[in-house]
Amino acid sequence: MSKFLNEKYQNLEVYVPGEQPQDMEYIKLNTNESPYPPAPSVIKAIDQAAVSDLRLYPDPECAGLIKKLACSYGVKPENIYLSNGSDDILNFAFMALSGFWGKVYFPEISYGFYQVYADLYQLDAVKVPLRPDFSIDYKDYCGVQGMVVIANPNAPTGLALSLEEIRKILDSNPDQVVIIDEAYVDFGGTSAVPLVAEYDNLLVVQTFSKSRSMAGARLGFAIANAELIADLNRIKYSTNPYNINRLTLLAGEAALDAADYYQSRCAKIIETRAYTASALEGLGFTVLPSLTNFLFVKSDHMGGQQLYEALKAKGILIRHFSSPKIQDYNRITIGTREQMNVMLDRIQEILRQDTSADWLNANTSKNRKDR
Amino acid sequence: MSKFLNEKYQNLEVYVPGEQPQDMEYIKLNTNESPYPPAPSVIKAIDQAAVSDLRLYPDPECAGLIKKLACSYGVKPENIYLSNGSDDILNFAFMALSGFWGKVYFPEISYGFYQVYADLYQLDAVKVPLRPDFSIDYKDYCGVQGMVVIANPNAPTGLALSLEEIRKILDSNPDQVVIIDEAYVDFGGTSAVPLVAEYDNLLVVQTFSKSRSMAGARLGFAIANAELIADLNRIKYSTNPYNINRLTLLAGEAALDAADYYQSRCAKIIETRAYTASALEGLGFTVLPSLTNFLFVKSDHMGGQQLYEALKAKGILIRHFSSPKIQDYNRITIGTREQMNVMLDRIQEILRQDTSADWLNANTSKNRKDR
Repeated sequence: MSKFLNEKYQNLEVYVPGEQPQDMEYIKLNTNESPYPPAPSVIKAIDQAAVSDLRLYPDPECAGLIKKLACSYGVKPENIYLSNGSDDILNFAFMALSGFWGKVYFPEISYGFYQVYADLYQLDAVKVPLRPDFSIDYKDYCGVQGMVVIANPNAPTGLALSLEEIRKILDSNPDQVVIIDEAYVDFGGTSAVPLVAEYDNLLVVQTFSKSRSMAGARLGFAIANAELIADLNRIKYSTNPYNINRLTLLAGEAALDAADYYQSRCAKIIETRAYTASALEGLGFTVLPSLTNFLFVKSDHMGGQQLYEALKAKGILIRHFSSPKIQDYNRITIGTREQMNVMLDRIQEILRQDTSADWLNANTSKNRKDR
Repeated sequence: MSKFLNEKYQNLEVYVPGEQPQDMEYIKLNTNESPYPPAPSVIKAIDQAAVSDLRLYPDPECAGLIKKLACSYGVKPENIYLSNGSDDILNFAFMALSGFWGKVYFPEISYGFYQVYADLYQLDAVKVPLRPDFSIDYKDYCGVQGMVVIANPNAPTGLALSLEEIRKILDSNPDQVVIIDEAYVDFGGTSAVPLVAEYDNLLVVQTFSKSRSMAGARLGFAIANAELIADLNRIKYSTNPYNINRLTLLAGEAALDAADYYQSRCAKIIETRAYTASALEGLGFTVLPSLTNFLFVKSDHMGGQQLYEALKAKGILIRHFSSPKIQDYNRITIGTREQMNVMLDRIQEILRQDTSADWLNANTSKNRKDR
């Protein structure tokens, strides 16, 4: 830290991204990336001519991609804001839409960045506990004095609120922005986008990172009332108007043209999720019913940190969070069926090695593979 | 504007980017883009495998590109901060490094975004007048009570301070950050990077947008004392850790491997700049001695707005600023020699049509083309 850093930023605890170790090749199941590449149309769109055109600035208004997104989601272009990843939208919303009370409500267990943004903008963060089963009680967010931010489905739990529950939160907070962060919605959740027409306080946030296999392209978007979108654009045009690069804009358009491809990949991930959940349960794990591209799981025989370390030693990265209420759990991204089988085999090896694992039925592996 | 927007942002006057009209094909000389494509190595680097890997997050630490940049600029990796365009760095610096006084000093005529950032972060902007010849008097920035931001060379004037003058500003402001914005330094300016080893208050900002033909990739960087760089990273990791996408990181590395290519393109632009300046002087223009990839010029026979409009009607975009002290001027990006010849021809047509242009020597065009 330099002596020049403004005092209010000196005690920030920054977000720690999922690890990206370079020491060996890992099966990466720790950052909720898709195991599938972008659609062939995306790979075709980034051709030599497109790269050659990098000499030119991108369209700061992103008109082409916004038009296609509007068409895909049944809204008007003025209902869409595009961003350099969905973090960018959350950042601006915490900065500029937190409202009179300077308070923001979000689940105690959720995306870690909400707390970071609250700290950054000196907002009072009200971290609402989950129910014992890790579900969100929508009533905790009704009639509150501050902005509401809910990941739906929530991460790392994978659980979702219904649209009716979200509607009640919106109804009871007409003077507060309610952010529904739908990063994982395409894996079985129900989107709140249809509610945008009814509620001027709803900001839906989505991303191309997960279901559209574009985490490396940095492309997120918000859908909301035109006035909220104008607010986000006002901040964008006061910070970094050209914040989405040309190739990402092209890739985004091509991805929207390949809806069938992505739907079939999401279906595969949902299928692999069910297979993996069932296999893990067979190995004595508690598995939360996920509507995302990851599972939140707890071994009955091994702590979360221990399993994380043991799998890492065997070349598989999963995500462990050290916060006490979830330290027994791990978040496991759904990869390909083959990757899941390797992981399941490694977990069995680990459990066998574990002194407390003599309960393990030697036939479990065979049983699972026959499923 | 929604009813939710925080009060302090309700009166922001946002930055207006150079226009990108879609109604016809223009010769674009209005946003200081390079007329040359990125190096062949860059085009080769963005191959199908690279696009396929978009499913994975980029390295948030950007280790590969930072290592190469450190090597290119003779500094250590910890002296380099990478960003999603250099605007991103300016944004963070105004946000977090403006210091105790809440004041920022910059030239009255300079990059328009400095004022926008000052407004965004409620800083007191001290806009220091230029000398009558548009040059900056370094003494105006010595011993001031606030952060100093100087584009060097300055835009839109194209004029530069010497390293000795910058050194005096740095010496006299040991407790303030001094930002030297070197977006255009590769076209004949002298970089302040060698001073980073001596001054902990110096933040040098550069970009791949201009001399490296990558405006569309969004890649900027800062070079400074390791502690200032750590401050910028602290803000990045509290807002948008993955703010540079994978393809841009790859393109940046490939660009650094092609230093010869870019040096030869810069040399061409410098040559074309001299040619164009001389031709415009022959047409009665006042031309400031530029060290950038643009010229700041005034016709003795036509207002800046009038020339801008007349050229636009003929398919050529140049940049006009309406602020009173420079409204007679236009900023013209240096394109290829061929583009400059088209522009010079169009200017002659315009001057001929202008009733006050009967002074024009009918042979000027011929003379110019023989140069």
